[in-house]
Amino acid sequence: MTPTAPPPGEVLFLLAGDPDDIAAACADLLPADIAEGMNDLPVEGGVRILTAIPFHLAVQVVDEPSLERRDELIELLEDDFAIPLIQALSADQQVRLFRDLKEADRTRLLHVLDAPTRNQLKLLMSFPPQSAGGLMTTEFLGVPPSWTALQVRLNISQVGEAKETVYAIYVLDEKTQKLLRIVSLREVIMAQSDTPIGRIGEGRKPVTAHPLMDREDVARLISKYNLLAIPVVDDAGHVLGICTVDDVIDALISEQTEDVQKFGGMGSVTEPYLDVGFWTLFRKRVGWLSVLFLGQTLTATAMGAFESEISHAVVLSLFIPLIISSGGNSGSQATSLLIRAMALNEVTLRDWWRVMARELPAGVALGMVLAALGAARIILWQQFGFHDYGPYHVLIAGAVGLSLVGVVAFGSVAGSMLPFLLRRLGFDPASASAPFVATLVDVTGLLIYFSAAYLVLRGTVL
Amino acid sequence: MTPTAPPPGEVLFLLAGDPDDIAAACADLLPADIAEGMNDLPVEGGVRILTAIPFHLAVQVVDEPSLERRDELIELLEDDFAIPLIQALSADQQVRLFRDLKEADRTRLLHVLDAPTRNQLKLLMSFPPQSAGGLMTTEFLGVPPSWTALQVRLNISQVGEAKETVYAIYVLDEKTQKLLRIVSLREVIMAQSDTPIGRIGEGRKPVTAHPLMDREDVARLISKYNLLAIPVVDDAGHVLGICTVDDVIDALISEQTEDVQKFGGMGSVTEPYLDVGFWTLFRKRVGWLSVLFLGQTLTATAMGAFESEISHAVVLSLFIPLIISSGGNSGSQATSLLIRAMALNEVTLRDWWRVMARELPAGVALGMVLAALGAARIILWQQFGFHDYGPYHVLIAGAVGLSLVGVVAFGSVAGSMLPFLLRRLGFDPASASAPFVATLVDVTGLLIYFSAAYLVLRGTVL
Repeated sequence: MTPTAPPPGEVLFLLAGDPDDIAAACADLLPADIAEGMNDLPVEGGVRILTAIPFHLAVQVVDEPSLERRDELIELLEDDFAIPLIQALSADQQVRLFRDLKEADRTRLLHVLDAPTRNQLKLLMSFPPQSAGGLMTTEFLGVPPSWTALQVRLNISQVGEAKETVYAIYVLDEKTQKLLRIVSLREVIMAQSDTPIGRIGEGRKPVTAHPLMDREDVARLISKYNLLAIPVVDDAGHVLGICTVDDVIDALISEQTEDVQKFGGMGSVTEPYLDVGFWTLFRKRVGWLSVLFLGQTLTATAMGAFESEISHAVVLSLFIPLIISSGGNSGSQATSLLIRAMALNEVTLRDWWRVMARELPAGVALGMVLAALGAARIILWQQFGFHDYGPYHVLIAGAVGLSLVGVVAFGSVAGSMLPFLLRRLGFDPASASAPFVATLVDVTGLLIYFSAAYLVLRGTVL
Repeated sequence: MTPTAPPPGEVLFLLAGDPDDIAAACADLLPADIAEGMNDLPVEGGVRILTAIPFHLAVQVVDEPSLERRDELIELLEDDFAIPLIQALSADQQVRLFRDLKEADRTRLLHVLDAPTRNQLKLLMSFPPQSAGGLMTTEFLGVPPSWTALQVRLNISQVGEAKETVYAIYVLDEKTQKLLRIVSLREVIMAQSDTPIGRIGEGRKPVTAHPLMDREDVARLISKYNLLAIPVVDDAGHVLGICTVDDVIDALISEQTEDVQKFGGMGSVTEPYLDVGFWTLFRKRVGWLSVLFLGQTLTATAMGAFESEISHAVVLSLFIPLIISSGGNSGSQATSLLIRAMALNEVTLRDWWRVMARELPAGVALGMVLAALGAARIILWQQFGFHDYGPYHVLIAGAVGLSLVGVVAFGSVAGSMLPFLLRRLGFDPASASAPFVATLVDVTGLLIYFSAAYLVLRGTVL
């Protein structure tokens, strides 16, 4: 029963037809479906669709947050079509468009827009794109406290079309224009017609966001208080705009993509995978990969320091990948736990010692399990004759076990402390990617392994 | 300006006071804040708060999705308080509560609930918890098409309090009760009072969800069409309930936590990090860590096969951690890209060869960059006398470079194909964790390295 966009082939066929056919084919579709169909077409196809369908529908399509290449579409459209279209967009989508436009187009189009739209755009563009101010739209319903419920209802029936949401009504002080309270449309409908809106929900404090609040924190407030929109309020108490729940969902999905990719150790790629150019993808990956590689060259230095130990007991080298990767894996687990706990505000900076006090014993316990597995593997292989680890194989098993306890414990502690360190230094804790943790832990893992081997095997093979 | 819960210490102090003091302290707080405060207290403290505050506020607090240990609270409350409280909860929170309750409590409480509540609960609990049916609530506003806009408005003012959302109105066929259309409250308010609701938005098809649809797909529909709620409709076209946007946000946040933790290579932990017991955390981690460890023991087997090569040229062992970790890092990048692309439906199973055709050249290009860095590192260190890699150091640099190209290309291809393979086998592609990929790539990395070394160094050090 869900409406779906026609397959790209069908749309391409339609584009060969005349504008009336295109309009007829789009008549049954929702704006989000038309936008999705346009994303699969060359930009010229999108332009044909926008100019063929009724203007009010074209506005709704370009207002869809999921529409891609909005800047290229606008550049291809005639100005006498593009300018009314831009003016009709909601403020948050205007901002997104102008952020994407080329410098020359931006300047030219800003000058032909009417003065109120231009000034508002300039204000909104002054906020960082990932802040509440950068996400907000300015079309909200503000009313004085003296209006009655009936007046508010009549007002909505007149101006409702132009507002992003009419489900939250902002009661503003008549003189200072400061936000007094938020009343829901449900409350307005349920109230007696002659009740002044200032009497609804008296004593209730509004939940608000600061314009510079990060979009993830905005999402957290909206989710915690089950809001449909949150007002963005400056230090003086004036409402600058509102962030609606649908913007927040889009922001959450982008944030999720960013976090997974960061944890995988790369720059964030927000465009669909198959649409990103080969060299763009290459550039996003090569930076971190090279940095991690240079970090990893320290393992060659560490190994070089133990070259004579290895030449005396080549058998020691056999367990190097096993031991250092165990440290990396336990570190990666701890990091993923802590990144999430920090993102959800379950853990704050001052909890670092409580985390350390859990991760150290947890790491030792986990290391002991792996140590038992590792030692058993060596002794069983020797018994069954799968491999000959020499006369000191029990001691070697002991050295491997001992270093596993040390390496896994170190991995858990380092992996859990890294997000704290990054946050303390002002970075996003999510930058602590799995490869980053593994690289950190590998060099130390080698030092722990060779120290344990020296301790256990001194006087025998070493 | 954002209301915040009092610090736990303050709440504990209040709990020593009498119920009136507790009620007075809670009077200024929003239900979500009281729920948050209760999460930080022992369960007995929560019980004291619930019984001290007005009953309608207690219902709102227990209805908060963020409230934890709801089952323990209900078990501690007297039945003559608990039963009306449960009856007053919204259907989706009743389901969550009954899913958490102990078997004995569940059976007992189900029997004392009134028949409509009991039957509805049984229906809702029959759907999987992470499906649309498991998320939905049944309090929605269904009206016949003949009602006028005025009748609908009057109806909302009478029954609005009991509905989860009144902002979407479901127009149901008078005879069959099938869903005809969804009309927004905005449209009802903007329509003339005498317009029949069946005439609003004629020809528009409703966007609906199937009861067994996964919550991530529900979130995607709500986000794509910017909805506040989506009706859950059975195959016969009857509305079973609705999923609201706030449930979807909560589902998205849980899904995000699960994905990051899976990618970190562990079972998912949904409770706050510091609240999870030590041994629970241990159990969630030790499983995957042991499986990965057993996979990694294959590296010891692979290394064992090359023991004589290592003893001839110990210098080869120095670059083992560097080379295998580079494969793991490039694999982890590719996996994180593909997991996300699959989660967002940007890439489907049949795209595997298009992905392969990108990842292979990308991997070769990335490998060549690392090869240049690695070879330069060896030759420079030799020139500056930091380390003596012997008379064949240029050949060794060549072998390291050649294997880096092979290992990084293999890592990119393996890392990008693994999510496809998992999905094909019916697993969640997000199970392809960074440590899982690294383990897969490490063994092959060793084979590639020693083959390249044999090719380049045969007749010299080997």
